Amino acid sequence: MDIWYTENHTDNVRLSIRIDRQFASVQSEFQRIDVFDSVEFGRIMTLDGLLMVTEKDEYIYHEMITHIPMATNPNIKKVLVIGAGDGGTVRELCRYPSIEQIDMVEIDELVVHLAKEYLPFTACSLDDPRVHIYYQDGLRFVRKVENEYDLIIVDSTDPFGVGEGLFTKEFYGNCYKALTEDGILVNQHESTFYTSYSNAMKRAHSRIKGFFPIALVYQAHIPTYPSGHWLFGFASKKYDPVRDLQADWWNGLGIKTRYYNTILHRGCFAIPNNVRDALRESERDKR
Amino acid sequence: MDIWYTENHTDNVRLSIRIDRQFASVQSEFQRIDVFDSVEFGRIMTLDGLLMVTEKDEYIYHEMITHIPMATNPNIKKVLVIGAGDGGTVRELCRYPSIEQIDMVEIDELVVHLAKEYLPFTACSLDDPRVHIYYQDGLRFVRKVENEYDLIIVDSTDPFGVGEGLFTKEFYGNCYKALTEDGILVNQHESTFYTSYSNAMKRAHSRIKGFFPIALVYQAHIPTYPSGHWLFGFASKKYDPVRDLQADWWNGLGIKTRYYNTILHRGCFAIPNNVRDALRESERDKR
Repeated sequence: MDIWYTENHTDNVRLSIRIDRQFASVQSEFQRIDVFDSVEFGRIMTLDGLLMVTEKDEYIYHEMITHIPMATNPNIKKVLVIGAGDGGTVRELCRYPSIEQIDMVEIDELVVHLAKEYLPFTACSLDDPRVHIYYQDGLRFVRKVENEYDLIIVDSTDPFGVGEGLFTKEFYGNCYKALTEDGILVNQHESTFYTSYSNAMKRAHSRIKGFFPIALVYQAHIPTYPSGHWLFGFASKKYDPVRDLQADWWNGLGIKTRYYNTILHRGCFAIPNNVRDALRESERDKR
Repeated sequence: MDIWYTENHTDNVRLSIRIDRQFASVQSEFQRIDVFDSVEFGRIMTLDGLLMVTEKDEYIYHEMITHIPMATNPNIKKVLVIGAGDGGTVRELCRYPSIEQIDMVEIDELVVHLAKEYLPFTACSLDDPRVHIYYQDGLRFVRKVENEYDLIIVDSTDPFGVGEGLFTKEFYGNCYKALTEDGILVNQHESTFYTSYSNAMKRAHSRIKGFFPIALVYQAHIPTYPSGHWLFGFASKKYDPVRDLQADWWNGLGIKTRYYNTILHRGCFAIPNNVRDALRESERDKR
C-alpha cells in the first residue's frame, strides 16, 4: 500500500512525502490540522494542508528564528511569541537561563493539544514555568501592550488564511509599540522563489521597514518548505544583528545546535541578488 | 490533460513538475536525455530521469560554480571544465575577458547537441572562439595533463551513473597534477540532507582533502535539486576563497549576476552545523 501526502507549492509544482500512517485529522474553529508519520521526515504536522513541522528538519526553522535575536542581545528577559503552537520556538527559548518570561499567543488551542500529544520533540518545553500560553488572536493581543517585550517572535503560518492578520501594517506597528527600547522583532518572512510567496514577502518587508530603523532579512535552507529557501525578518530599534552579534557570549553558553552557529549568524545575512532585488522592489513600491 | 514529471529525491520523497510538452527523449551511448517545457520552470533537461537544468533556476548553480573561483584569483587564464554539456558554466566563464582558453570535456556529445537546440539560454557561448570542446571521458582526459590549468571546474552529474569516475581518488589526484601552482578545483559537491547524497558528499570531501592543502565547502539554494540545499567544493594549492577574495576587482568588472555577489561570496562559506558535522565525520573516517 502507498500513502502519499502532497503539498502543491504552486499549481505547477508538488512535493510528495510517503506517509506511514495518519494520527489525527481535526477541523478546529480556525483550520484543518493533520498529523502523520512519514518514512523520510518522521512525524509531521500540516495546517490547512500546508506542511508546518517535520521531525527531520524543524530544528532549522526553530533554531534560526530564535538564536539570531538571542545572540544579538544577551539582555533579553521577556519574550512574546506569536503563533508557534507546535512549541519548537519556545523549546529553543527555554534553553536560555537568562530569559525570565515567555508569553506565547496562539489562536488555536487545538494545535497546542495535538502538538503535546504527537510532537513531543517540539512541545517538550511548553510546561516550563516561565511559559504563559494565551489562546488569543495575536493581532488583538499586541494592541494593548506597550513597552513590555525585549523580543517578539512572529512564528506564523503563511498570510493566506488564519495567519493573515500577522502580516498587516497595524500588527507591525503594534509590535513596535509593544517592544522596549532594546526591542527586536523577528518574523517568518516567506520566500522569493515562487510568486505568491514572493509577493507576501515584499509586502511584509515594506510594512516592517515603515516602522523600524533597522529591518533586514536573513535566510535558511529548510528542505520541506516551498523552494527550500526560507527567509526571516530581523527588525529592531537599535540592534544590528551582524555588528552587535555577541559571539563569545553565545558560544560560552554551550547551547548545542544542529544548524545555527555564530559564523552562520553573520553568513545568513549575506543574501543573493534575487532576494536583494525583491527587497529593493518592495522598498521602491513603498516610496 | 495533465502531464507531470516526477523525480524521486529518495524512495519516500518526490518533486513533481507540471509539463507542457516534451521536445526530446533520446538514449545516448551513456544515458537517457529528456527535454521538456514546464509551466513553472520553463525549459528543463533531465539525464537518466534526474533534473539537471531548469530555465528558472539554472543561473544559481552556474553563477556559484564559476564566480566563486574567478573572484578569488583574477589571473585565471586557462580553464578546464569537465561535464557541463548544457553550456551554462561556459557561458559564465565567457563573461571574463581575462580568460584566454576554456577546454570543455564532455563525455556525451548528444547532451551538447540537444542543449544547442533546446537550451539556448545555457548553450549560448559554446561557440566562443576561446572554447574547445572534447568529447571524451573527463577521467581519462586529466590523466595526461600536467601543470596546465589555473582552474578546473567539475560540473558533473551525481556519482550514481556516468559521472561516477569524477568522484574517485584517482580523478582528484589527476586534477591536482593538472593544475598550476595557482590552481583551484571547484566541483559540484552534492548535498547532506538525504543519506545517499550525503554519503557521496562525504566521500568526495575526504578524497579531495587528501590532495589539496585548502579544501572547503560552500553552499547555495537551488530549489529544483534534492532538498534545495546544494554544496560545492573549493580546493586549491594556495588560495583561500574568503581571505583572497578580490571584491573590488570583481565588482569593477560590472558582470551582472542574479544570485552571486561579493558579500554572498563570504557568506556562502558559513555552513550550518549539519554540513560542518558531515564534513568532520568524513575527515574522521579518513584518518
